[in-house]
Amino acid sequence: MGVIRLGYVHLRVTDLEEARRHYEDILGLKVVHEEFGKLYLKAWDEWDHHHLVLEEGGTGLSKFGFKVTGPESLEKFEKSIAAFGCTVNRMSKGENYAVGEGLRTELPSGHVMELYYEIEYVGTEVGTLNPHPRPKELRGIGAPALDHMLLSAERPDILERFFTECMDFRVSERVVSELGENGELIGTWMFVTHKTHDIAFIQGKDKMFHHMGYKLMDWSAIRHAGEILGMNDVSVGFGPDIHGLSRGQTIYFFDPAGNRNEVFAGGYEAFRDWPTITWTADQLLRAVGHIGREMKENHFTVLT
Amino acid sequence: MGVIRLGYVHLRVTDLEEARRHYEDILGLKVVHEEFGKLYLKAWDEWDHHHLVLEEGGTGLSKFGFKVTGPESLEKFEKSIAAFGCTVNRMSKGENYAVGEGLRTELPSGHVMELYYEIEYVGTEVGTLNPHPRPKELRGIGAPALDHMLLSAERPDILERFFTECMDFRVSERVVSELGENGELIGTWMFVTHKTHDIAFIQGKDKMFHHMGYKLMDWSAIRHAGEILGMNDVSVGFGPDIHGLSRGQTIYFFDPAGNRNEVFAGGYEAFRDWPTITWTADQLLRAVGHIGREMKENHFTVLT
Amino acid sequence: MGVIRLGYVHLRVTDLEEARRHYEDILGLKVVHEEFGKLYLKAWDEWDHHHLVLEEGGTGLSKFGFKVTGPESLEKFEKSIAAFGCTVNRMSKGENYAVGEGLRTELPSGHVMELYYEIEYVGTEVGTLNPHPRPKELRGIGAPALDHMLLSAERPDILERFFTECMDFRVSERVVSELGENGELIGTWMFVTHKTHDIAFIQGKDKMFHHMGYKLMDWSAIRHAGEILGMNDVSVGFGPDIHGLSRGQTIYFFDPAGNRNEVFAGGYEAFRDWPTITWTADQLLRAVGHIGREMKENHFTVLT
Amino acid sequence: MGVIRLGYVHLRVTDLEEARRHYEDILGLKVVHEEFGKLYLKAWDEWDHHHLVLEEGGTGLSKFGFKVTGPESLEKFEKSIAAFGCTVNRMSKGENYAVGEGLRTELPSGHVMELYYEIEYVGTEVGTLNPHPRPKELRGIGAPALDHMLLSAERPDILERFFTECMDFRVSERVVSELGENGELIGTWMFVTHKTHDIAFIQGKDKMFHHMGYKLMDWSAIRHAGEILGMNDVSVGFGPDIHGLSRGQTIYFFDPAGNRNEVFAGGYEAFRDWPTITWTADQLLRAVGHIGREMKENHFTVLT
Repeated sequence: MGVIRLGYVHLRVTDLEEARRHYEDILGLKVVHEEFGKLYLKAWDEWDHHHLVLEEGGTGLSKFGFKVTGPESLEKFEKSIAAFGCTVNRMSKGENYAVGEGLRTELPSGHVMELYYEIEYVGTEVGTLNPHPRPKELRGIGAPALDHMLLSAERPDILERFFTECMDFRVSERVVSELGENGELIGTWMFVTHKTHDIAFIQGKDKMFHHMGYKLMDWSAIRHAGEILGMNDVSVGFGPDIHGLSRGQTIYFFDPAGNRNEVFAGGYEAFRDWPTITWTADQLLRAVGHIGREMKENHFTVLT
Repeated sequence: MGVIRLGYVHLRVTDLEEARRHYEDILGLKVVHEEFGKLYLKAWDEWDHHHLVLEEGGTGLSKFGFKVTGPESLEKFEKSIAAFGCTVNRMSKGENYAVGEGLRTELPSGHVMELYYEIEYVGTEVGTLNPHPRPKELRGIGAPALDHMLLSAERPDILERFFTECMDFRVSERVVSELGENGELIGTWMFVTHKTHDIAFIQGKDKMFHHMGYKLMDWSAIRHAGEILGMNDVSVGFGPDIHGLSRGQTIYFFDPAGNRNEVFAGGYEAFRDWPTITWTADQLLRAVGHIGREMKENHFTVLT
Repeated sequence: MGVIRLGYVHLRVTDLEEARRHYEDILGLKVVHEEFGKLYLKAWDEWDHHHLVLEEGGTGLSKFGFKVTGPESLEKFEKSIAAFGCTVNRMSKGENYAVGEGLRTELPSGHVMELYYEIEYVGTEVGTLNPHPRPKELRGIGAPALDHMLLSAERPDILERFFTECMDFRVSERVVSELGENGELIGTWMFVTHKTHDIAFIQGKDKMFHHMGYKLMDWSAIRHAGEILGMNDVSVGFGPDIHGLSRGQTIYFFDPAGNRNEVFAGGYEAFRDWPTITWTADQLLRAVGHIGREMKENHFTVLT
Repeated sequence: MGVIRLGYVHLRVTDLEEARRHYEDILGLKVVHEEFGKLYLKAWDEWDHHHLVLEEGGTGLSKFGFKVTGPESLEKFEKSIAAFGCTVNRMSKGENYAVGEGLRTELPSGHVMELYYEIEYVGTEVGTLNPHPRPKELRGIGAPALDHMLLSAERPDILERFFTECMDFRVSERVVSELGENGELIGTWMFVTHKTHDIAFIQGKDKMFHHMGYKLMDWSAIRHAGEILGMNDVSVGFGPDIHGLSRGQTIYFFDPAGNRNEVFAGGYEAFRDWPTITWTADQLLRAVGHIGREMKENHFTVLT
């Protein structure tokens, strides 16, 4: 009982056709459904109908959803969220294309989060009978699946409480301004699967989106992604490098609307019985880039 | 509530000093405790006291343990195992060095399995404050952590029932003799974390051990492991290759007593809402080695 | 003045259309010219018109050519080859499609070798102005270029003398039956560029072909090649593994006619002032496969 | 006859013991000889006595040497250099420790270059009989060998003429301010082996040193180097990234004196019959970093 994984992200883009080219040609996703002003996309190694809905108009996060195990999870989370003091509403099957009934809430950071347990089944591109290890044909980066999301919040500490108290997440890593009682929480990385993080929050404006991350196989896939990005003149924000925080191997880049994407490989397998790792703000550059330790100002300031 | 991970393996070895050299110099584990006839070892990225106990005398699996969340998990599994018809006994704190109270049961395959929720905390070699992505010094292969185990059983189907019904595991992949009603279960790969498998059973003699797998970072770490194995004249059973089943990148090799080890990288992240993948026996070579599709007879016959 | 590189290989194949599919879809070469019973192919990172001519009928090597610097090299080699006691003839421009005038000789092993200094210029797929690091689209393995060739000869020692005395090659590595005076030469690896080998001979029947090797970027490209081979059911002879001899990372596989191909990465940069490395026959398995040290009987016996 | 390779670099460092730690612990070189104020170092895969001499006092390049084939090369280059209008002097055996007789000249850029054909033979760490593919123990990055050097010159065009006309180098790639007659040469990359470059010059102050590059096996070795650099707080200038120019995979970093080092992998094999690749200045960021396309100001301005 509980959250299964980050299921979908609804992202606003200024131009739907430009966005389509980016997510199809560069990231290698497939459009599985279209409706007026919206594109629904999935990655090759995902079973569910979609993980990304591009919505024309503006930039940034429209809303996102976690898939949960079933109606009993909805009931549990309905209570825990209400007890935390957030408004939570039922949503009906069909309010989201291909998605069943669920809950909708506004996080303390103003982000809209949905919980659902049913979504149309499409299947991966390699199938369930004597499958190949990957599809014969891949486009661009060929990202297999959505991995995680980083948002900003004025009070990351409240989001940390929300996700650990209401949603049964654990904190894998945290950045604090300093050790000790005066230390302020600058960022928190949380998991409910065994990823190093399923969702994370850094200090910044409420309601804003930092990036969503796609999981690649390894460091050679990160280079391959870099080749694709370079050949297509995609704007790169940071990387390739190794994160100190999470140990992930990474490149950040921007979609044509300016929303940040990440390709991510490696990172350890997190377990619920492990202690939280702490980073102090003076080591922030190392937490972000173990090798380069320098980044564009915009890594911390550009949010959508 | 439930199983956290494969916690420890007690392995019999014919010569303790030879085994020490193998697991320390080749795999890069560290001896954390010694007592008469036994060595306790951990890997650098593990928090718990040990994951391997080498016991002098013979070969093969002596017993193994899954770490569970707490006493409430013990109670739950005590009932579910008894209900399945297996004998289950309480074990006391200290019966296993550094390990707390728990349960002990004999699987339908005759293997001895323990469940426990406490083990002495040692910590990883990189720590919890502004950690490096890996230790400065690594020995041999430098395996970060134990990953999974493959055992043999006369009736894999019963073991599959045991782990899914009593222990809340899911089946990621199966090999069947043929599709349809006459198909017999030849092997079953099961997970309780998000690994492609935490434990697996293939058809063979009861009580026997096929291999335990260590998780490496990626395909380049597999090559690095291969360099170490070759330079130290370690007997290699199979690989490097890509498993069709699990997509893991792999080398199998033998410790001086003849127990099989595996180094394993990649593999997908498994989720509980996914369908099981099926392999038919005619594709078995592809399931084991996507590239080479040929293996030494001994891959299926040598068990300890 | 001298040999520039292994320029082209004419290979006999039993079925031209099957061979086209193999070399185009699997290796990723491009057909640049066709004529009755022949296909001419090049790889994406080669400047010259072709490096492979597939000739319908039979299997094995029809002939091969080294590109040399100019007419003065032809004159020099004409003399050195004649002095060695081999017959050498002039060949005219146009005897080979797109290739200029040259020499043709029969090696002491019976293989037909040509030397030429002109071949039509086509250019790589990335061009000469602000090029991308690779083409945007690659097919199959996407082999960038031909690398080397291994042939068999009853007397490798004579071939070693031929290439070092007449053609200015150096010996990078050798396999001998034993050290000392009674040692017989079992194989010789020779270079004229800075490759670990441009051509090599192992003991076996005269006139026979062991394999031609394509150079890939690295070990991750070897895995990528293995994925392609596996997904297309290409028969793999050996690998992935690391050669002890040459340190190359390798997979051997067969075209539909049974001619052996290799994908090869790594290997050191050879220099003419370096001593020759010697392998003794008792270490032959390690010379071929540093990790696996076992190979199918056919690796030594199947020649075309 | 001609140049074999870049043989040695004499580099000035402000503190010899700090430099020793950097080149031994970080790059993994070995000190083979010490004398007052000087350390001589070699890498594990080099046969010659040393490739690096650290000289206490100041920063930047003291001088460098190319190994040539023999006395006949000295005679030839003595004439060609004099004909170019540069002063060239004989140097005696022993003027450089372990190095035989040679020539010394001052390049048009003011850099001191030596040519020699004898240097004490030490051998690689894997030897010449049934060698392992690498040493069992490597320190830090474990760089196998020196690869190339980049210097600055007020007139790169003159250096290009010098190396092509006097020394038989070829130009693999060039950067020009613009195409056409008004285009000024901003940088030139030249080879005499089959590397993408053995030496290169960019526009800047005369006599200055940009970096020397070490060749690593591949992109995974670049990451491994990055891990070492980060764990040891070495100042990184740029990377990891892929050069558009040369296709090399790279990280630039600084020794404690501020001299720039590079680790470099990949890059194509250059041949003398190939056309030169041209980059225009507007694509300079892409030439340096195909992925990131942005770099610290200091990449172009910091020279020693």
